[in-house]
Amino acid sequence: MAYPKSFEELMECFKMLPGIGNKGAERMAYHVLEMDQSQVKRFSDALIDFKKNIHHCKICGHICEGDTCDICSDPSRDKSMICVVESPKDVFAMEKLKEYHGLYHVLGGTISIMDGKTADDLNIDSLFNRIDDMTKEVIIATNPTREGETTALYLAKLLDAKGVNVSRIANGLPVNSSLDYADDLTLLRSFEGRKKI
Amino acid sequence: MAYPKSFEELMECFKMLPGIGNKGAERMAYHVLEMDQSQVKRFSDALIDFKKNIHHCKICGHICEGDTCDICSDPSRDKSMICVVESPKDVFAMEKLKEYHGLYHVLGGTISIMDGKTADDLNIDSLFNRIDDMTKEVIIATNPTREGETTALYLAKLLDAKGVNVSRIANGLPVNSSLDYADDLTLLRSFEGRKKI
Repeated sequence: MAYPKSFEELMECFKMLPGIGNKGAERMAYHVLEMDQSQVKRFSDALIDFKKNIHHCKICGHICEGDTCDICSDPSRDKSMICVVESPKDVFAMEKLKEYHGLYHVLGGTISIMDGKTADDLNIDSLFNRIDDMTKEVIIATNPTREGETTALYLAKLLDAKGVNVSRIANGLPVNSSLDYADDLTLLRSFEGRKKI
Repeated sequence: MAYPKSFEELMECFKMLPGIGNKGAERMAYHVLEMDQSQVKRFSDALIDFKKNIHHCKICGHICEGDTCDICSDPSRDKSMICVVESPKDVFAMEKLKEYHGLYHVLGGTISIMDGKTADDLNIDSLFNRIDDMTKEVIIATNPTREGETTALYLAKLLDAKGVNVSRIANGLPVNSSLDYADDLTLLRSFEGRKKI
């Protein structure tokens, strides 16, 4: 016995979402069955509105509702620094700190042989187009994963050739962690990156 | 820094789904950002179509696209037996066996003091309206949980007073399980329910 067609179709749609398998999609569809008509309408509209309104900022690639994001269009931001991150999520993480007041550049991923992603698939050209005499420093804040490091090295080489000051966020032990739980590479990087106190 | 309005709204909608918290909703919204326009449209339409087309069967409470479900409108089903279950999911589970050829009745939950659900909130009146001279047996197949058992006992009493043959699905050890992993109550029920071989 199969599910009715509209039920199957909604399950298929839920299965497009990350981390949702057959059982999860089934559970969600049953939940929608118990939801009010108005709630389902709200959900359906939210999807359409999201796709219509949310774009990538034309300058930095961050998400925004207009053409350019709040950060790029904020005249009070320090235009001499550009922090390069993998995804919009990272911009929100950095902004939470309220410590950095420069600009961002969102790559939209990393160079990854496994996923067949090359430098051409990333937002790199637009980064180089932005760099001008005002740019004093580019901080590469891709994740400290294999792909993030590869991308950082690739960018650093190109930026260096252009005579731009490039820095990379530090590796080391997380605050409040303990030495004997750290993996070897983290401990090594932490040791190598030691500073005079 | 806050997410754009349409982004927040979609996250709120995802959070209405069971098991989806802040992080999950965020991850899903980012995924929708990368989806094609046509895929998002499909998802949005699927929600509306689902709500428009999927109803509870007027006879048994199972889900269906028309007024009555495939089982109730199938003339080859054995009309002398009604299997009472908690939810449409249970009908699909039973049907997978291809062993039972009678009818179903979906209660839409169980009596649960914790959730403030009484017998009046369940599909019970319609069950009694269905029972006639043709009905030879009502099998109560609510889950073997505290709520399921309470509901089963409640129904059994009422059905018994009406002179209907009532049975309950068996408790015992799951096939391929081991005795020393079984909880006490399951083992006790399995022992009490022993049969001559």
